[in-house]
Amino acid sequence: MSTEPTAASAAELTPEEVESRLTAAVAGSFDSCSDDRLRQLLQSLVTHLHGFIRDVRLTEAEWSAAIEFLTRVGDITDDKRQEFILLSDVLGASMQTINVSNRPFKDATEATVFGPFFVDDAPPIENGGDIAGGGTGQACWVEGVVRDTDGAPIPDARIEVWEADEEGLYDVQHEDEQVYGRAHLYSEKDGAFRFWALTPTPYPIPDDGPVGKMLEATGRSPMRASHLHFMVSAPQMRTLVTHIFVEGDELLKTDTVFGVKESLIKKFEQQPSGTPAPDGRDLGDETWARARFDIVLAPEGV
Amino acid sequence: MSTEPTAASAAELTPEEVESRLTAAVAGSFDSCSDDRLRQLLQSLVTHLHGFIRDVRLTEAEWSAAIEFLTRVGDITDDKRQEFILLSDVLGASMQTINVSNRPFKDATEATVFGPFFVDDAPPIENGGDIAGGGTGQACWVEGVVRDTDGAPIPDARIEVWEADEEGLYDVQHEDEQVYGRAHLYSEKDGAFRFWALTPTPYPIPDDGPVGKMLEATGRSPMRASHLHFMVSAPQMRTLVTHIFVEGDELLKTDTVFGVKESLIKKFEQQPSGTPAPDGRDLGDETWARARFDIVLAPEGV
Ligand SMILES: [Fe+2]
Ligand SMILES: [Fe+2]
Repeated sequence: MSTEPTAASAAELTPEEVESRLTAAVAGSFDSCSDDRLRQLLQSLVTHLHGFIRDVRLTEAEWSAAIEFLTRVGDITDDKRQEFILLSDVLGASMQTINVSNRPFKDATEATVFGPFFVDDAPPIENGGDIAGGGTGQACWVEGVVRDTDGAPIPDARIEVWEADEEGLYDVQHEDEQVYGRAHLYSEKDGAFRFWALTPTPYPIPDDGPVGKMLEATGRSPMRASHLHFMVSAPQMRTLVTHIFVEGDELLKTDTVFGVKESLIKKFEQQPSGTPAPDGRDLGDETWARARFDIVLAPEGV
Repeated sequence: MSTEPTAASAAELTPEEVESRLTAAVAGSFDSCSDDRLRQLLQSLVTHLHGFIRDVRLTEAEWSAAIEFLTRVGDITDDKRQEFILLSDVLGASMQTINVSNRPFKDATEATVFGPFFVDDAPPIENGGDIAGGGTGQACWVEGVVRDTDGAPIPDARIEVWEADEEGLYDVQHEDEQVYGRAHLYSEKDGAFRFWALTPTPYPIPDDGPVGKMLEATGRSPMRASHLHFMVSAPQMRTLVTHIFVEGDELLKTDTVFGVKESLIKKFEQQPSGTPAPDGRDLGDETWARARFDIVLAPEGV
């Protein structure tokens, strides 16, 4: 015969050989890809994907169920809903990507997942201003200093902050155009920053789609631990995307997107009614909270 | 602190420990899944998915590109187009699933991919009938015997056959309701069957979507080797889904869905113009071809 098949006959090979030859043939089909990185990515993907199929001895019915699941993930995804990101999040793939692409550097603040709720054009506030913007919840004073890994303060660092309201909803989850729970400010000459926000509360990821059904079928909670998002950038520094979490939150152990890192858990100290605010703000007889978050940026390119 | 995070601080752990602890935490999140098989599938999936991310040191930009790619796969998928199956096919995942779920048994005929073009209600033909149904191409006589692995003939085995026309299109790829290139028949008392078909020709998988773009970006061909599909079933026997391929086809080595197995490559012997047909059919001065495919079914449950 003048031709060779991509996989030889089972009559001459063990099943294991048939399977490993197929994996090699598929990986080899990308050998002539001229983009070295794309070739590496696809060959590794194929190897791990086939490893999964072989390890679990995937049945044809299970394969069909997987195709059907992915089809439903595609069906619900649109401009406002990104179910593929949710899927990546609940499988820890988003967090693992953060881990491998933000290597620890000295005492630089750790990164965590970006999440789907950031928007580009959040309003500016002055230091000491309020990001709540009409969102409901307990007032929370947040302050800290931005430094580099040598301890030098970083002035003019751009600090983006965003969070859900006390009902667990971000402004973008509403149909209206209201902007709340997000703003940006800049660190001062000595690196210091301070602002009013809302004390973070827990919320579920959108769980009315196939990813929510998968969590339910496997006995997992859709809840995220309470958190406040930050993105901090400054010239020549690695941009930091992270959250801070609330010490004592019961959900820290089971955050459904695996975003919690110990170094990011902060005390949010509850202040009894009548406690004077740091900036003299009149809070009436409302309780409030305060938290400190000192930020260390790694240099760019590490 | 009364709570433990799902991943400990990088200050105390090496990056490798942070990464492997995350994988363990995600796998562990499925520990309380009450469906043992679902738990096994998801824990293995997570382990292999994280292995991929860690091995290639996936960047955040690459993760975003992957999300965007899957989103486009979802966008083009509808009732008539299944791009997730195409993706599975070109990554060899469909074929590997066939391998692990159809273990070789004695000399049972090997299985290969089902493909997306089977339909349930193909017309019946008698032995010696024609499956072409108006589809264009060279006439091809196909005959064989269905037996079990002890060599005993299997009468009344249901044989479904389907194929593309000489333009490489299946009937279901047309908007009209025409049925061609598909039929079913039954083996005779001695297990024998015979029918007229079209000599198989190569065709591309639908390549105007994201999967086609991926093949193009990696220098791979979208072409399938020429083939004729079979699905053969009989009481107490394992249903066989397979194709036969054409010996000498240049595409056997590069079949884009990795469906070729050496045992499935058959001689399609070209018959010069004027060669009498086996059943006396008048083919005028047309050339024709003939192929033999003896089928061995494994018992059910092996
Ligand atoms: Fe969030
Ligand atoms: Fe086909």
